[in-house]
Amino acid sequence: MEKICVLGAGSFGTSLAILLTNKNEYNVVLWTRDKKQYDEMLNTRKNENYLKDIYLPEKLSISIDLESSLQDSNVILLAVPSQAVRSVLRTIKPYVKDDQIIVNVAKGLEKETGLRISEIVKQELPNNKYVVLSGPSHAEEIAKEVPTAIVSSSQDIKVAEYIQNIFSTSKLRVYTNPDVIGVELGGALKNIIAFGAGIADGLGCGDNTKAALMTRGIREIARLGIKMGAKLSTFSGLSGIGDLIVTCTSMHSRNRRAGILIGQGKSLDETLHEIKMVVEGITATQVAYELSKKYNVDMPITKEIYKVLYEKKDVKECIENLMLRDKAQELEEVVLEKLSL
Amino acid sequence: MEKICVLGAGSFGTSLAILLTNKNEYNVVLWTRDKKQYDEMLNTRKNENYLKDIYLPEKLSISIDLESSLQDSNVILLAVPSQAVRSVLRTIKPYVKDDQIIVNVAKGLEKETGLRISEIVKQELPNNKYVVLSGPSHAEEIAKEVPTAIVSSSQDIKVAEYIQNIFSTSKLRVYTNPDVIGVELGGALKNIIAFGAGIADGLGCGDNTKAALMTRGIREIARLGIKMGAKLSTFSGLSGIGDLIVTCTSMHSRNRRAGILIGQGKSLDETLHEIKMVVEGITATQVAYELSKKYNVDMPITKEIYKVLYEKKDVKECIENLMLRDKAQELEEVVLEKLSL
Repeated sequence: MEKICVLGAGSFGTSLAILLTNKNEYNVVLWTRDKKQYDEMLNTRKNENYLKDIYLPEKLSISIDLESSLQDSNVILLAVPSQAVRSVLRTIKPYVKDDQIIVNVAKGLEKETGLRISEIVKQELPNNKYVVLSGPSHAEEIAKEVPTAIVSSSQDIKVAEYIQNIFSTSKLRVYTNPDVIGVELGGALKNIIAFGAGIADGLGCGDNTKAALMTRGIREIARLGIKMGAKLSTFSGLSGIGDLIVTCTSMHSRNRRAGILIGQGKSLDETLHEIKMVVEGITATQVAYELSKKYNVDMPITKEIYKVLYEKKDVKECIENLMLRDKAQELEEVVLEKLSL
Repeated sequence: MEKICVLGAGSFGTSLAILLTNKNEYNVVLWTRDKKQYDEMLNTRKNENYLKDIYLPEKLSISIDLESSLQDSNVILLAVPSQAVRSVLRTIKPYVKDDQIIVNVAKGLEKETGLRISEIVKQELPNNKYVVLSGPSHAEEIAKEVPTAIVSSSQDIKVAEYIQNIFSTSKLRVYTNPDVIGVELGGALKNIIAFGAGIADGLGCGDNTKAALMTRGIREIARLGIKMGAKLSTFSGLSGIGDLIVTCTSMHSRNRRAGILIGQGKSLDETLHEIKMVVEGITATQVAYELSKKYNVDMPITKEIYKVLYEKKDVKECIENLMLRDKAQELEEVVLEKLSL
């Protein structure tokens, strides 16, 4: 029986560990570095902080020992926050063999370097195959077996298909996608737009405004993505607009909640103090703003959000700026699209 | 001063008439064939049935006389239900001059023929220029000046730009798009997916399911659209996914409400009886199902909805079918995409 090691017992790691265990085809171990969480999961068979009311299947192994968890695993599932990925990779490196496949579910760009997760993995574990799973997938819904669709993306199509097979169930449909760059950028940068949608909500704008922001927002992310080597189609897929839809319509999204506070007139400091957690969209806005200058790509929504966050610009003025820009054609990207094929 | 005649005082026609009047640059007349509605609007300066609590600007002319309304109008805005378009065109034909521009906001395909609105206009008024306005735009929000973005689409770019200029305000951003086929198909067929999203809601599925349905749904519509001459990009734009987002997240959508009832186990007859209005998604499902066979395009979501509606197939079984189809690649359409450029 193949063995799968899940690193990180947050909501997403735990949900996928439950799903894989219930398939009854794999030996699954869920590793956490947190002794208190480890004890709790062992004793109560629940992960109370992340997945209330959901029991861990009996066959799921819980571990706090990294070496034995990794040993003989065919797949290592990275389910840690994006800013922790590099340090976790450095920690596991001594125990990882070249034929173990790294599967990542974190979404984000490294704050200091702007690197995607696959680029970090390439630096730290250059010999291992890499797959990213992404798409519209609230962890709680995966654990509750709500029908969900995601993508398995790898430069190596065979590896993407291998992971597609492992994760596919009657409740989880997995598509392959060869465009790792697009999948990773969509997952990381959609938080900017979720944050912007929150601002619009906080300002009391309507559904029209939010739908326009989402549609034009993913378009400008795609424009940047294409310059960085991604395919336009990926951004209109599950890991692009699909994930954005789930994020923008959920109150669970910290990015959206943070945006609402900003839209209501709170300062960045007050907002971060109130949310008390990492708001990826804020970091992502800064990274994307820099990238848009580097690649010379017009990203009007990102630019206005950047000015609200870092230049204390009035949010209402930003909306006005966005509405009154030069008149535009909707399919300007067709030229870029050709380049991306 | 240019004159604009709005035909039809439903919520959308009335909202746009208000917006244009408030621009203070046009002579706007709102025509209705309904004597009672005409009297009410004249006396109360409100359109109570469609736009509660919103006053009609003083300068907006209200008319029940078709000939004088049309006379000297530069633009004729068709704001009537899609199934009424042909009969309205036949009624106005004697008064229409060739240089008057027809602007349409109805979304749908003619039930008997499957034709798009531009094709109907071509048959009835073959000498007039045609523009379609579409995008995520609840009429109430337009009347209340909520920031909104739409597209102005015409085969003739100059005409699309002329209409873009007329409708652009600080609250309404208008993009041009040369792809009339894509804009019209997106507007008409998105109701199938809104209906499907309603079914998922009625079944108690989650946000993951709905986002996946929307993403994959617009993709299969795009597949059909490309075969019919549309551009892939249009479906990821305002008139495609943008409009779908607004429709799927709103309880105002009859299509979504009808889907919820079907998802809860009601029959088609019971559902139509309860909704008491035209449910475009039901007609659209049948038309799209036929088109998918004609053009030999795989449309799994449309097909399952068709089976629920017309072959009394169990909805749960449909969801299972969709989840368990052959494993797929997400970017299969890249080939088609190339053809569409």
